[in-house]
Amino acid sequence: MTSQRIWTAALAVIGDEILSGRTQDKNIAQIALWLNLQGIRLREVRVVPDVEDAIVEAVNQLRARNDYLFTTGGIGPTHDDITVDAVAKALGVEVVVHPKARAVLENYYETRGGITEARLRMARVPDGATLIENRMSGAPGIRHGNVFIMAGVPHITAMMLDALSGTLEGGAPLLSATLGCWVGESEVAELLRATEKAHEGCQIGSYPFFREGRVGANFVVRSTEQAVLGACVAALAGGLEATGRETVAGGI
Amino acid sequence: MTSQRIWTAALAVIGDEILSGRTQDKNIAQIALWLNLQGIRLREVRVVPDVEDAIVEAVNQLRARNDYLFTTGGIGPTHDDITVDAVAKALGVEVVVHPKARAVLENYYETRGGITEARLRMARVPDGATLIENRMSGAPGIRHGNVFIMAGVPHITAMMLDALSGTLEGGAPLLSATLGCWVGESEVAELLRATEKAHEGCQIGSYPFFREGRVGANFVVRSTEQAVLGACVAALAGGLEATGRETVAGGI
Repeated sequence: MTSQRIWTAALAVIGDEILSGRTQDKNIAQIALWLNLQGIRLREVRVVPDVEDAIVEAVNQLRARNDYLFTTGGIGPTHDDITVDAVAKALGVEVVVHPKARAVLENYYETRGGITEARLRMARVPDGATLIENRMSGAPGIRHGNVFIMAGVPHITAMMLDALSGTLEGGAPLLSATLGCWVGESEVAELLRATEKAHEGCQIGSYPFFREGRVGANFVVRSTEQAVLGACVAALAGGLEATGRETVAGGI
Repeated sequence: MTSQRIWTAALAVIGDEILSGRTQDKNIAQIALWLNLQGIRLREVRVVPDVEDAIVEAVNQLRARNDYLFTTGGIGPTHDDITVDAVAKALGVEVVVHPKARAVLENYYETRGGITEARLRMARVPDGATLIENRMSGAPGIRHGNVFIMAGVPHITAMMLDALSGTLEGGAPLLSATLGCWVGESEVAELLRATEKAHEGCQIGSYPFFREGRVGANFVVRSTEQAVLGACVAALAGGLEATGRETVAGGI
């Protein structure tokens, strides 16, 4: 039961705009939630600058030790978009113009001023790649082996994830349930530890907050087994109720 | 001018809640913006799970190749808070109870039910550490050499950053200016490339968007030299205006 294979993914977020604080990343959470539904766990994330060596290092370390690697950012038409070149270098292959990507872009820009050298940059892929459809803006995502090159703009990445849904091999989806309680987490630390220990294959996360002048916490129980999850949640709920504090199924 | 020393920092975000997509990280952007003001560049970020080996690996790789390493998350009182133990292991030192942290916590909890074993966990530090003040919740942040252990809850981290402001050695702050333009970035890709190349020490980032049915982009120019930045922005503004599209100083 606990020896089932766990499929893992890593994410490399590529972009100076995240590291400068200019842009609040939204792709980590978006991709994490999508991966959960595919039965794949996001195991690690790196945010790297628009610097070739940094991208190459992250791509090669992460793709080697995870089932899948996703990248976001750096696939547009401008000089700071170097993801395709860096991934190709990491993979040890040439960069080529993908004929289908070229056709898609020519069609997309037919009524938008025509294809240009800059726009054609978005048809370049690591040799051997296939395309990931993007109904939004013409420029496709790119798959090469276990590496998936996605857009930086979150709603374009969302379209690409949509196109990939159900196509990747995964394991049992990680299930979760949340219990909220108006209690300081330090008051129930031993209960949490003991409850987790008594339910093999469950993890309990504790996320404290301070709202309306009161301390509380949400406790998230995770497992791939519905029955184990249910038993752990029931045990935790019983323990929390025994403290006399208000407990809220689903979280506060 | 371009040979000035650049001070760098890395950030290790520690927490299953970020990797599961449950929590949207806010510390990357917050710490990035704060570091800019200290004249330090956030060079890389890793998000790692609540797993000791993963934390140890990230801490040791990142602290070795950056001037500073910040961590967020995993310093609370519960069983899933293992950051202090993992950082101590990475540093090769013991975990000890810091007498001042213990006194702070005893004082904080005096009117809140008293100190307990779980709460005392928050007084544990890697041997040799100093404390970073936290006016919010009693539990302090921790400094050991070039490693800074901060809270996961963003407003508590904000308090700790406040306490550190002006205390770290840095270089010239990275200055930036933004120009917005209602133009597709692919139409001005060559202008961006040539303008960046003509202004040594400047980087131009291009951030496209689609709003109100129109395409546009914000162009962010970055440099540590005010004069170089100004010249680059002026050249870029001239080039954008020559396209006949509306340009907006400060960004759209």
